[in-house]
Amino acid sequence: MAQQGLYKQYEMAAAQIVGLSLVDTNAYERLEYLSDQIGPRLSGSPQLEKAIEWAVDEMKADGLENVRAEEVMVPHWVRGEEFAEMISPARHKLYLLMLGSSVGTPPEGITAEVVEVSSYAELDELGEAVRGKIVLYRNVMRSDLPPGQAYGEAVDFRVNGASKAARWGARAVFIRSVTTRSLNTPHTGNLRYEEGVEKIPAAALSIESADLIHRLLLRGQKVVVRLKLSAETLPDAKSANVIGELRGRELPDEIVLIGGHIDSWDVGTGASDDGAGCVIAMEAARLLVKLKLRPRRTIRVVLFTNEENGLKGAFEYAERHKGERHVAAIESDSGAARPLGFAFVGNDKALEKVREIASLLRTLHADSVIKSSSAGADLIPLIRTGVPALSLRQDPTHYFDIHHTEADTFDKIDRADLAFNVAAMAVMAYVLADLGEELPRDK
Amino acid sequence: MAQQGLYKQYEMAAAQIVGLSLVDTNAYERLEYLSDQIGPRLSGSPQLEKAIEWAVDEMKADGLENVRAEEVMVPHWVRGEEFAEMISPARHKLYLLMLGSSVGTPPEGITAEVVEVSSYAELDELGEAVRGKIVLYRNVMRSDLPPGQAYGEAVDFRVNGASKAARWGARAVFIRSVTTRSLNTPHTGNLRYEEGVEKIPAAALSIESADLIHRLLLRGQKVVVRLKLSAETLPDAKSANVIGELRGRELPDEIVLIGGHIDSWDVGTGASDDGAGCVIAMEAARLLVKLKLRPRRTIRVVLFTNEENGLKGAFEYAERHKGERHVAAIESDSGAARPLGFAFVGNDKALEKVREIASLLRTLHADSVIKSSSAGADLIPLIRTGVPALSLRQDPTHYFDIHHTEADTFDKIDRADLAFNVAAMAVMAYVLADLGEELPRDK
Repeated sequence: MAQQGLYKQYEMAAAQIVGLSLVDTNAYERLEYLSDQIGPRLSGSPQLEKAIEWAVDEMKADGLENVRAEEVMVPHWVRGEEFAEMISPARHKLYLLMLGSSVGTPPEGITAEVVEVSSYAELDELGEAVRGKIVLYRNVMRSDLPPGQAYGEAVDFRVNGASKAARWGARAVFIRSVTTRSLNTPHTGNLRYEEGVEKIPAAALSIESADLIHRLLLRGQKVVVRLKLSAETLPDAKSANVIGELRGRELPDEIVLIGGHIDSWDVGTGASDDGAGCVIAMEAARLLVKLKLRPRRTIRVVLFTNEENGLKGAFEYAERHKGERHVAAIESDSGAARPLGFAFVGNDKALEKVREIASLLRTLHADSVIKSSSAGADLIPLIRTGVPALSLRQDPTHYFDIHHTEADTFDKIDRADLAFNVAAMAVMAYVLADLGEELPRDK
Repeated sequence: MAQQGLYKQYEMAAAQIVGLSLVDTNAYERLEYLSDQIGPRLSGSPQLEKAIEWAVDEMKADGLENVRAEEVMVPHWVRGEEFAEMISPARHKLYLLMLGSSVGTPPEGITAEVVEVSSYAELDELGEAVRGKIVLYRNVMRSDLPPGQAYGEAVDFRVNGASKAARWGARAVFIRSVTTRSLNTPHTGNLRYEEGVEKIPAAALSIESADLIHRLLLRGQKVVVRLKLSAETLPDAKSANVIGELRGRELPDEIVLIGGHIDSWDVGTGASDDGAGCVIAMEAARLLVKLKLRPRRTIRVVLFTNEENGLKGAFEYAERHKGERHVAAIESDSGAARPLGFAFVGNDKALEKVREIASLLRTLHADSVIKSSSAGADLIPLIRTGVPALSLRQDPTHYFDIHHTEADTFDKIDRADLAFNVAAMAVMAYVLADLGEELPRDK
């Protein structure tokens, strides 16, 4: 059986990788440094610059080759004051975070009635009735669906809700934070304004604050809120993708890309999103260097910038490197909980091969490969050019509890779980880069 | 068997109570009103006054007798500005809540190094070395102990930590929020200053912020924090205990007290602490009225004021009513999760009787009665006079997640669980009030 063949061929290499990942302590310390000593890394922030410098230095120290920062211009949005309180029918402080890219209110703030809708259809039905009001979307993240799917459904209102409501003359938009668990914890994230539609401010309320308004409206009460939000959009700032390589011993121009994104939101310290992904990719490469496991093809670590509010890093990378042969790309961008396996975008023959490789991770429970249409936002441009793409899938149970919040901090990281991720990424990347024939693809 | 006797005697009454509690919807709506329409009810606040008026009106409408508000003077502490950031070795916003009764910093704030200790012994060992610094207690709430016990151990530093550190010249105190779960959620609660010791400001950091400092100190780094806290202690304010009765049909001067506390912290809306307890007691009495179950003795509902930062309501009640015969007292002050049974303070013969009564709650899983030395803070003065005392024990698994936080809001309340509590309180109170002989006691 072919599976046995591949399995047997790489069993001892995988054992070396897994063994070292579970004894070495560097991944955990590195992520601690990035989280605690550098902190949040929104595009345009000095911390992001510092993180980029740090990553370059670290990759050089790890013995990677061709280490460099490739310049990318990124949006530069800066959160300002955030204040909201209910003034009728009862006085309550409301807890929220502005959505990324949002404009502020006028400096004096606004006072307006809140109307709630559960769908765009409901919004359109209300139509002119929302003029001058604040629209609250009741975008409940369902807990009866797989978290990724539930997130995808609920987050649409975060991305598109502001412009949809602005079309009807709303003055501001609230969403319900996209999560299933809350300790009064608002979740930010980016929005997208439609061209030609007035930009109105948008913020995510904590579940507690959103549900309070919901209950009062259900009782037939008129809810009036005073809202003061400010934010600045400065000129685009210089940033960079960080790149380092383990050059292939036979086909160095064929590339297996592994990566995460070096930017984060400006709340929390981006330990899980996506400090973890960066460290997982950096460490996967470092372990291979340390073990002197140099595959036939090049493994290239790419830490993308500006994933959170622009994807400029991903598009700049794809544009600048379009002449190169990427045989596969793997991103990790869903935290550092135990790895379950991979999502794969590519044809069925390639899927079969990836599953063969993943079988080396069966004992770690990380061998489940699912066919998917996406594999991490940063790989979108590469997928468009036909590159087979994988995303490392972590146990999603608690990821969205802390996603884009002040609680995305290092204390949530487990040493062993992080190490399992490094092992899974390293084994998959090494074997993909070492295969006799590159992964099948359609274009 | 005596147990069968009692069980048989009250089986149909208990069935009526349980049945109605699980069909009636008033408890949930009432708690929603108290939480959402009135909100947080710290001693001295207008919301507490409003809650007291509301409770009087509700009890009257329920058909209780002798409904009144008995005046109590209470402390009047008002939280002001709260700001903390780490300025070295890295810049991080820190998340905290001042402890109740705490003084503020000087208006310009303080900037000081943080030293961490895990015990008072460690503090005393450091001694003069803490002078001029901020002491952070590493009072981790253990998750390997029953939550109530773990809370009790960790909370000592909240209550006493400030004065202990002030004795050595510390400028301020941080504790680690007393909880095992956090989404960057600080927990307030009261402190007690020792007489004759300088009052220094004290605040509870979120676990995330406390653990960040902990990790940096472990790395040998010097942690410097800028801290600005303000609070006012105004003259004592008028408040009241709210009282209503279901007068006994044979022995109206013998009283079974049931209650909770009407005040809450100024964060969240006190839905679980202790809006729930108030509503459970009010509803237990209301259901008995509605079912025309008038016991031999009087059931007196008491909603104590100022449990959180002074216990003035409890002491005033005990003083004012010391001439009356309280045959038993039951408080509910640990939320509204599923009831497990009761804690009991009294002699073994009485314990046996209480267990007989609780057996009526076996099918509800609420029949576990444990012997205890305490039964809710408000019952302390009554226990001192020999009154057999019970506290309704709720499943504690998630109570401390939200205790004294902005997340103590109505969305955490489950209709059915709340109803089970009403049923357990009503059954226990009714049978205690109707027993042929009052509960045995030592004095």
